[in-house]
Amino acid sequence: MKLLEEKILKEGKVLDGGVLKVDGFLNHRLDAALLTALGKDIASKFEKSGATLVLTVESSGIAVAFAAAQALNVPVLVAKKHKSVNIADGVYAAPVFSFTHKTENTVLVSAEYIGEGDKVLVVDDFLASGNAAIGLLSLIEQAGATPVGFAVAIEKEEQGGRALIEKKGVPVYSLARIQKMSANEIIFG
Amino acid sequence: MKLLEEKILKEGKVLDGGVLKVDGFLNHRLDAALLTALGKDIASKFEKSGATLVLTVESSGIAVAFAAAQALNVPVLVAKKHKSVNIADGVYAAPVFSFTHKTENTVLVSAEYIGEGDKVLVVDDFLASGNAAIGLLSLIEQAGATPVGFAVAIEKEEQGGRALIEKKGVPVYSLARIQKMSANEIIFG
Repeated sequence: MKLLEEKILKEGKVLDGGVLKVDGFLNHRLDAALLTALGKDIASKFEKSGATLVLTVESSGIAVAFAAAQALNVPVLVAKKHKSVNIADGVYAAPVFSFTHKTENTVLVSAEYIGEGDKVLVVDDFLASGNAAIGLLSLIEQAGATPVGFAVAIEKEEQGGRALIEKKGVPVYSLARIQKMSANEIIFG
Repeated sequence: MKLLEEKILKEGKVLDGGVLKVDGFLNHRLDAALLTALGKDIASKFEKSGATLVLTVESSGIAVAFAAAQALNVPVLVAKKHKSVNIADGVYAAPVFSFTHKTENTVLVSAEYIGEGDKVLVVDDFLASGNAAIGLLSLIEQAGATPVGFAVAIEKEEQGGRALIEKKGVPVYSLARIQKMSANEIIFG
């Protein structure tokens, strides 16, 4: 998506350790108009998927997931992130390793809000190693629901997350696909 | 706002310790259509405020803040919550005590995204004791920006947060104002 690629080129900064800083419009300060456009683009890509629910994880995925859900006219389920693995009854939980923070968290959702009848579109801000995605797909599987796709604002291709998701038969759609990046250059695929 | 009050009466649950559980539409599962309507209502209330920025705190305030920002056509700044008080350069930070979790956190924003010229509308999901609100107002003050209002989906009047905010000269607007609640009854003001 041209609009997002241009914004990344203009405002994104590549930090040490393969981190792309886009907190001026996607993570910390949210460009509401841009995110609304991203959501509409995701919705148009998945309008025939029959999605009944958008699933994301707190907190940086919420805005883009919400914008997609508005356009699809379905609710969003926001998986909670917890440090502990002490899980209460009535929830589905999965471990997720955070690439950015080098910590392991648990993601969880209440079982009452996702079930067998649901067709679930996962939406997140980033796809890198795919760890968060695999955790979210595990929640869908535990609920007996059907994943219909994985949509992400920015994909960092080199970290290989796409292959993990596609191996599970889930189509991946990224609005900006970064093939390579360095302090001086960002190349889209 | 009738729509929200009806939703609270229909789906909200009052738990021990004065907690109102509304995670079926506001916190955990997000009713995108309802939240969009809440955002529009907040925007129409503050359309003449000249707001240049919406400020909220992760993660349960993000969706309603985003919906208000869409309608006002301004960006959202999402304050981050941290356990630690080790603050890096270039950020504004303030302590916040969480009523729900009985823990003290630090909320912080990057100084580059808020400044003297900004007129800031604070938007959150809940107003209870007002601790989060006071923390967010402190960030605005540190930035030299001007708070133009505090808008919240649900106010729990008994916990007194409104007075703290109004004492600072900031107008408070709540879409559903709960006067009293118990396991059997929720009374709006």
